Amino acid sequence: MFRPAIAAMTGYTPGEQPKPGTPIIKLNTNENPYPPSPKAVEVLRTLDIEWLRRYPDPYAREFCNAVSEALKVPSDWIIVGNGSDDLLNTLVRACAEGSDRKVVYPMPTYVLYRTLSAMQPAEVVEIPYPEDFQLPIDKLIAANGAITFIASPNSPSGHCVPLTDLRQLASQLAGVLVIDEAYIDFAEYSALSLVQEFENVIVLRTLSKGYSLAGLRLGFGIANPKLLAGLFKVKDSYNVDAIATLVGAAAMRDQQYKNTCAEKVKASRAKLTIDLRKLGFTVRDSQGNFVLATPTTSQAEYLYQSLKQRGILVRYFNQPGLTDKLRITVGNDEQNQLLLTNLIDLS
Amino acid sequence: MFRPAIAAMTGYTPGEQPKPGTPIIKLNTNENPYPPSPKAVEVLRTLDIEWLRRYPDPYAREFCNAVSEALKVPSDWIIVGNGSDDLLNTLVRACAEGSDRKVVYPMPTYVLYRTLSAMQPAEVVEIPYPEDFQLPIDKLIAANGAITFIASPNSPSGHCVPLTDLRQLASQLAGVLVIDEAYIDFAEYSALSLVQEFENVIVLRTLSKGYSLAGLRLGFGIANPKLLAGLFKVKDSYNVDAIATLVGAAAMRDQQYKNTCAEKVKASRAKLTIDLRKLGFTVRDSQGNFVLATPTTSQAEYLYQSLKQRGILVRYFNQPGLTDKLRITVGNDEQNQLLLTNLIDLS
Repeated sequence: MFRPAIAAMTGYTPGEQPKPGTPIIKLNTNENPYPPSPKAVEVLRTLDIEWLRRYPDPYAREFCNAVSEALKVPSDWIIVGNGSDDLLNTLVRACAEGSDRKVVYPMPTYVLYRTLSAMQPAEVVEIPYPEDFQLPIDKLIAANGAITFIASPNSPSGHCVPLTDLRQLASQLAGVLVIDEAYIDFAEYSALSLVQEFENVIVLRTLSKGYSLAGLRLGFGIANPKLLAGLFKVKDSYNVDAIATLVGAAAMRDQQYKNTCAEKVKASRAKLTIDLRKLGFTVRDSQGNFVLATPTTSQAEYLYQSLKQRGILVRYFNQPGLTDKLRITVGNDEQNQLLLTNLIDLS
Repeated sequence: MFRPAIAAMTGYTPGEQPKPGTPIIKLNTNENPYPPSPKAVEVLRTLDIEWLRRYPDPYAREFCNAVSEALKVPSDWIIVGNGSDDLLNTLVRACAEGSDRKVVYPMPTYVLYRTLSAMQPAEVVEIPYPEDFQLPIDKLIAANGAITFIASPNSPSGHCVPLTDLRQLASQLAGVLVIDEAYIDFAEYSALSLVQEFENVIVLRTLSKGYSLAGLRLGFGIANPKLLAGLFKVKDSYNVDAIATLVGAAAMRDQQYKNTCAEKVKASRAKLTIDLRKLGFTVRDSQGNFVLATPTTSQAEYLYQSLKQRGILVRYFNQPGLTDKLRITVGNDEQNQLLLTNLIDLS
């Protein structure tokens, strides 16, 4: 019934998503602990119902205009997706195929890059990050991807890739360089300026993290219109619903609220990092809204399971290089304290 | 930069979507003229904002439960999409590829089937409907598609395919038979029972037409879990947002409201059909919320353009077999009367 590539693959396993209302502390899929902008909520509450009855704008222009104002990019340099996952999918479908048009990325990183490539199918070249997470530029260039994915900040490591490295990659790659900035709102710098320098660079953003709108499904990409033209052929015409377009536009226009929440998360991240280290965890400095923490003994899976039993979800990746680690979303200070109390209790 | 299949194709051209508030009578993309269920709107107005902050349920179970109750199908026989377009895309990606795994459908029909196949790429076999729109069963079977698409009711013709024909197709095809029931809420019968008889049949539905929720992006498929297993591998984990899941569930639970609106549309359709025939148009009996109308002289494109200038949008397809026809969405009686008045004025 299915294509060989589909029959052979296992699907992507998303993080556990218990229903809202479930008494659980959810630190497993990097949601923002603070609610979305009150201005965005107000748009939802007062939405003209005519927007529901009719098909949405295929270009989500109302949202593009808001992005254009907030980030000072022309609105025709923007493509909008049903989450940035939708745009990752669109990129793979537009550019990658078999062994002639490979997908390349450093590891560990976002697991969906692999899933989307298997589905296409497109050959994947995974280049391990060294221990210090310096970008393996030469190997990435030599792999000659039709698409090269770089998440920055990267999950689960939490590091940002230096702009000079990204610029060198962009200039030496013939294919498309995708800079996945899902976690940018918690980071020190962005690579957005590179889209003006290079026609083969696209920067992806999401409203799921910084803007607290994971449930809305809204992401966007910024690139030269020449690159976007091919992506517009592939994306579904009505991929973004009318509510996301309008609520997202209001959230995007409320940069001050988003920045205030991000500052709180960053302060909590600093405290959580110190507190975990005091408990003996090895914790990398992170530029995302999560930390990657290694317990002293090889008890990561045990801690994941034990915390889950106590109503605290964190992320455990059963994959090479990560089996001794936990990725912990930065919650609010109360949630983080409960996590720490339970970790002490379990040790 | 792009795969050859993408570089070569032109994108799908969606119908024109002017902004709500634009003073226009919109009879071009088969929206329902009545607003969505007040119960669905109430869910939107009172939504717990926690649903926005967090990722949605990857299986949209709340919505599946509502479908299960309304249609008396087990909830694990349901897959939910970001509009049924998303599921059409998922089906092509899961099953079709090159010349070994073709896509087959009778013509004319929904143009997106062709676009999705070009993108994959998968070879397409298009079998023309005869003048009387009897299903060309033997040719469809002989074409041996990995996927065979049958829209019933079909757009733009408006006819329903007899169950006996669909059963014969299902039993003789080795590949998947997709019965696209986007317009089922305005039709006399459904093929839903076939999913219980055949593991290779999936019936697709949407909330865009009967439920007046085109702006929400929500559709679903019903099939044996064996077929769904492959589709779940391909669909994006978070393809359906939390708002669509909950608002859609409320709409699905309010069958009475949906049926009342559909009855009004069907009454208006009967009247519009008679009135257009009185004006000299050839109009097929339709089981959708639209009619396919042929003016006496070859002036379809002229009428489309002239109506547009007067603020009335209808659909003109510039493709073989349809250049002398207009597809006109059934509006409310006032809108239909305005259309007729303008057609008289233009003739």
